[in-house]
Amino acid sequence: MRYRKIPDESIRRLPIYLRSLLLLSERGTQSISSSKLAEFTHLNPNKIRKDFSYFGAFGTPGVGYKVAGLIKQIRVILRLNTVRKASLVGAGKLGSALLGYPGFKMYGFEIAAVFDNDPKKIGKKIGNITVEDISRLKDMRKRKINLAIITTPAPAAQNIADMLVDKGVNGILNFAPCYLKVPKKVKVITIDIAMDLARMPYYLPAS
Amino acid sequence: MRYRKIPDESIRRLPIYLRSLLLLSERGTQSISSSKLAEFTHLNPNKIRKDFSYFGAFGTPGVGYKVAGLIKQIRVILRLNTVRKASLVGAGKLGSALLGYPGFKMYGFEIAAVFDNDPKKIGKKIGNITVEDISRLKDMRKRKINLAIITTPAPAAQNIADMLVDKGVNGILNFAPCYLKVPKKVKVITIDIAMDLARMPYYLPAS
Repeated sequence: MRYRKIPDESIRRLPIYLRSLLLLSERGTQSISSSKLAEFTHLNPNKIRKDFSYFGAFGTPGVGYKVAGLIKQIRVILRLNTVRKASLVGAGKLGSALLGYPGFKMYGFEIAAVFDNDPKKIGKKIGNITVEDISRLKDMRKRKINLAIITTPAPAAQNIADMLVDKGVNGILNFAPCYLKVPKKVKVITIDIAMDLARMPYYLPAS
Repeated sequence: MRYRKIPDESIRRLPIYLRSLLLLSERGTQSISSSKLAEFTHLNPNKIRKDFSYFGAFGTPGVGYKVAGLIKQIRVILRLNTVRKASLVGAGKLGSALLGYPGFKMYGFEIAAVFDNDPKKIGKKIGNITVEDISRLKDMRKRKINLAIITTPAPAAQNIADMLVDKGVNGILNFAPCYLKVPKKVKVITIDIAMDLARMPYYLPAS
């Protein structure tokens, strides 16, 4: 099942709710009010109620929302119950650091291949994955990998994205600090640390 | 000067405008309409006009906004013209990868110190910075470092944050996947890749 009408802004908040709800569940909390959840997530309680109403979750007055039920619903909406194979392109420092990142598994991503174009890296092992020559990207479809993580330098990223799309990739997590042009059917999420960095000084006292 | 009333949501978009404007400026573009900038940034033109109006930037009808002027204003608002010293705590894979990240310098951050508690890492050089014992955090105030980047595992992060705040840090960029409790005067920006990861499957075809 697919809930089509949830706005992107709300989808963006669902993982935040999910993380808090998982934590609450671990602590044995069974129900929570929108105002308590607002405190916990640092989000607005009206926004929370609105977001939850999109997928038909309505709290019981005086009791709140059932934690376990919300967790289940959010996981279904975000489709986190399926394991999906992803490749990582760019076996540099950032790529290597990400390979050790436990979050991938938690959200159903399995890094099934690592590619690079540097002969010094090809054939080397990072964790338990052997770095493959970038030319092997051509087998992505056969290996049923349709997600990719780009950790190359910015100038190479668009070229890599084009190759990935050509090989059937429909989702890209982009760590290169640049905008990627892809067909509409492909979803790109760019993680640009600089964008977070750049708003930090605004909140600091003048120095 | 300080523009106090700009909502957080708009502040969050200013770095996105800035990046696009810098690119446009490099290409020799002198003026741009909000609708063109909207295309460029993938944001809503009404939102852009609203955001710009907060700091008194109004485009000329038929001409648009002056690119150079906007860049200057946004840099002033975000206070990106000052160099600020930051320490990095946690010299693991992610920390090491970040030390090579050119974005810090671009936005006025200078990584002035790296700390870790692992005797195997202390004294080693990463790039041109020597990793120091975490106990040396006590000199932060004397060294005029009041920003920090946390790249420790999640269970250690709160403890480190408490120590940092105690030593006068007023801004933390947190890469540990957890919420940090700090006094109100301290600004924390948490970069949690998992939150971006978790919304990716929603946009993918069912597999």
